[in-house]
Amino acid sequence: MKTVREIAEFVGGTLKGDADQHIHGVGSLDHAGPGELTYAESTYLDRLAATGASCVLVAEGEYPDRTVILVDNPRLAFARAAQWLAPAPSPAAGIHPEALVQRDAVVAPDAAVGAWTLIEHGAHVGRRTVVYPGCYVGAGSRIGDDCVVFPRAVIYPGVTVGDRTVIHAGVVLGADGFGFVPDGSRHVKVPQSGSVEIGSDVEIGANSCVDRAALDATSVGDGVKIDNLCQVGHNVRIGAHAIISAQTGVAGSTQIGGGSTIGGQVGIGDHCRIEEGAIIGSGGGIPSRKRIPGGVVYWGTPARPLSDVKLQQAHVARLPKMAEELKQLRAEVQALKDRLSD
Amino acid sequence: MKTVREIAEFVGGTLKGDADQHIHGVGSLDHAGPGELTYAESTYLDRLAATGASCVLVAEGEYPDRTVILVDNPRLAFARAAQWLAPAPSPAAGIHPEALVQRDAVVAPDAAVGAWTLIEHGAHVGRRTVVYPGCYVGAGSRIGDDCVVFPRAVIYPGVTVGDRTVIHAGVVLGADGFGFVPDGSRHVKVPQSGSVEIGSDVEIGANSCVDRAALDATSVGDGVKIDNLCQVGHNVRIGAHAIISAQTGVAGSTQIGGGSTIGGQVGIGDHCRIEEGAIIGSGGGIPSRKRIPGGVVYWGTPARPLSDVKLQQAHVARLPKMAEELKQLRAEVQALKDRLSD
Amino acid sequence: MKTVREIAEFVGGTLKGDADQHIHGVGSLDHAGPGELTYAESTYLDRLAATGASCVLVAEGEYPDRTVILVDNPRLAFARAAQWLAPAPSPAAGIHPEALVQRDAVVAPDAAVGAWTLIEHGAHVGRRTVVYPGCYVGAGSRIGDDCVVFPRAVIYPGVTVGDRTVIHAGVVLGADGFGFVPDGSRHVKVPQSGSVEIGSDVEIGANSCVDRAALDATSVGDGVKIDNLCQVGHNVRIGAHAIISAQTGVAGSTQIGGGSTIGGQVGIGDHCRIEEGAIIGSGGGIPSRKRIPGGVVYWGTPARPLSDVKLQQAHVARLPKMAEELKQLRAEVQALKDRLSD
Repeated sequence: MKTVREIAEFVGGTLKGDADQHIHGVGSLDHAGPGELTYAESTYLDRLAATGASCVLVAEGEYPDRTVILVDNPRLAFARAAQWLAPAPSPAAGIHPEALVQRDAVVAPDAAVGAWTLIEHGAHVGRRTVVYPGCYVGAGSRIGDDCVVFPRAVIYPGVTVGDRTVIHAGVVLGADGFGFVPDGSRHVKVPQSGSVEIGSDVEIGANSCVDRAALDATSVGDGVKIDNLCQVGHNVRIGAHAIISAQTGVAGSTQIGGGSTIGGQVGIGDHCRIEEGAIIGSGGGIPSRKRIPGGVVYWGTPARPLSDVKLQQAHVARLPKMAEELKQLRAEVQALKDRLSD
Repeated sequence: MKTVREIAEFVGGTLKGDADQHIHGVGSLDHAGPGELTYAESTYLDRLAATGASCVLVAEGEYPDRTVILVDNPRLAFARAAQWLAPAPSPAAGIHPEALVQRDAVVAPDAAVGAWTLIEHGAHVGRRTVVYPGCYVGAGSRIGDDCVVFPRAVIYPGVTVGDRTVIHAGVVLGADGFGFVPDGSRHVKVPQSGSVEIGSDVEIGANSCVDRAALDATSVGDGVKIDNLCQVGHNVRIGAHAIISAQTGVAGSTQIGGGSTIGGQVGIGDHCRIEEGAIIGSGGGIPSRKRIPGGVVYWGTPARPLSDVKLQQAHVARLPKMAEELKQLRAEVQALKDRLSD
Repeated sequence: MKTVREIAEFVGGTLKGDADQHIHGVGSLDHAGPGELTYAESTYLDRLAATGASCVLVAEGEYPDRTVILVDNPRLAFARAAQWLAPAPSPAAGIHPEALVQRDAVVAPDAAVGAWTLIEHGAHVGRRTVVYPGCYVGAGSRIGDDCVVFPRAVIYPGVTVGDRTVIHAGVVLGADGFGFVPDGSRHVKVPQSGSVEIGSDVEIGANSCVDRAALDATSVGDGVKIDNLCQVGHNVRIGAHAIISAQTGVAGSTQIGGGSTIGGQVGIGDHCRIEEGAIIGSGGGIPSRKRIPGGVVYWGTPARPLSDVKLQQAHVARLPKMAEELKQLRAEVQALKDRLSD
């Protein structure tokens, strides 16, 4: 429980209204009630009058009947305040009696390991890290400090995870990359003997997969956020603070530059080079070995700059009119020819 | 074991043939054997003569050598009869000694909880509901009556599920929505403190994910059927009896109207409004904030009415011919010009 | 540990250099060190000079300062040698005390069953097969010899798996197919009472799903390789040695011919017939009931031969020029008309 004054100080905003109200939680602009903090982005300021929240983070305006905190970026301030007001609950430290930790594995004394979780030989679980029930941490894998691994995540052997990283339920890290070589009659497996290196402050969404490298390592940089049901192939390298939306797939050996923004259901072929700060719209497809520069929105399959795609779409949309014009022109030319043959 | 007469009564059809045969199960038109019931849709009636089934549900025709039951909709009658003849086997009620049910959780006495399943604090499992082995039911989550939760499903805290709902293996309900706000150098997580509300008579396919809301609730209405490997983002609302095929993704805050039919691998952007009875063909892509009306088949990316897409495809297919016509016309115009300059 | 001579003999290559060096593992061309074997494909031969590997598999060339083994197909030889040098480690045989094997299930004495894995009534686990922790093997399912089932895989009842097949973490075999029939107000489930038959030498990637048939069987042929997060619908039949990349979905009753190559994120509608040796590029979409012949690369949605797609793309790309030509031609015709009216 904090006062509005304390929240204003925490987010560095300007308070207008009743500084002494107590705030115990957060809510949405439409459904928050007394004692709750909310925020209003500029396009929703008209809904501010009807909110039941005790305090609203806003970027601008005068609201004589309301308690508001003026900040530059209401959503960012809200994100920070919400985390501060109501940190995610965490299980008590300790190894559950129904968990199994192999003798030569190391679990920090203030870490929590849930029931039916196996920490294999030589694995390491860092300080204050929580591994929920039903997880598998393979031999020699290392999870850093302050991480959260949700139920039923599977970490194959030899995977490393940095600090403050969140792994959601059903994630699979370090399964074999998809590498086969035909011998004329069948597909011979190329042993996948590399590893996976996940950085710090990463979040990986439910049921996503990051494959181990054939050789060397598949790597996911610091601060990268990957949504649910994504596929990251072997030997992919994702630079720091890239963001990848749900159901996107990245094929083998592709490099994704730092700070890239990849939409949902994007498909990126193998050996591509997505440069720093690249932006690929949802559903886009990048053929193998392509290079996508940063700073320009790419879209479509094969992906091209959005402006080109829109221009082309406009041209295609004009096709019926163009066909009509062509037909008319042919008639006119025929008329001219007829006239000249007269 | 039922007689053909009993089945005809159950499905409300007209029996032609031997009413006293005993039926113990179901089979396909091509592979059913004696004692089995099958059905034949109108396009497959020519294969009816060769079936080994003892009884066939059909919509029309005369089959003097066969025992048939005439019904309006053979597939619907078959679905009902098959469920009646051979209900899915269910584990015995009770909490397995290797399960863990926290003291303040409630499991109905006639529910079944499998080994290595954790029912967390304050969670509730309703009457006759089966939770298979290896599941996780988070704190405060409520599962209604007569549900089935298959192995290794993960339900995060605070999720509610109605009655008669089926959750397949590997499903993840209530993982954090994908919400981050950039602060200039990194992505700050927007706490996802809302919930997930799943209705009654819902089915959710293997390894699908329904994310918890940022604030308020993500909701899946009564009777909705979601196939495998689908992604439902935070704050999405899916109306009753919508049907969503495999690998489809729905981004945050989108509303899908009741009775909609969404194909496989469809991508729906955030804040879209898919209206009641909308139909989106497989592979379609809906950009953010679009509205799709009901009753018309939409397809393609960006999705448009199927008739428009087909027309445009026809125009594009004619392009080589059009280029040829244009070339010829230019020659003719040149000839005219030459002639006039003579 | 093997000598270079032994490796040359094993792969049937021609050794040039120091035959007595000991090789203990494998590495990449760029990062391998002393005692490691690597390979160089023809496009990377310029990087061979800088490798730290003790021995390199190559197809051609003279390298006086290096120990190389000349082979026809360096990647294939490497795949075989790597597997021989460093076979994947395997847990000790036996049933873990925390596993549950129902009394009438059969586990071969030299199989390994991990903690918290349930082998249900009538199920069978073959010789030397490893079932990792946290798996579920449903009633009556049969897993052959020398298989590996990674953690948290779920096999529903009545599924059969051949020999030497690898099932990765989170895979779900035999969940219900997606079959519903509308009764006017809601979707009535068509009972999915068929089975799943997986062949020998198959590999199925993490979190992929193969649904059970409505009736009869969904089947995956010998030697088929399926990548992560793929969906195989009910009654699909996949022929031997087909290869299917990540996030691809195959809808109900489709047949995929032997030796087909399907890219990533491909969507194949129901009742399609993909013929032997078909090739479908990543992201392609095949509408329901289509037939795709073998031997030609298909791409796009709806998928067509790649050469047609490229031709059409070239025509579309020429549209701005075509519009310009049309405009100019109209001006010229107008000029002719004006001249003739003078």
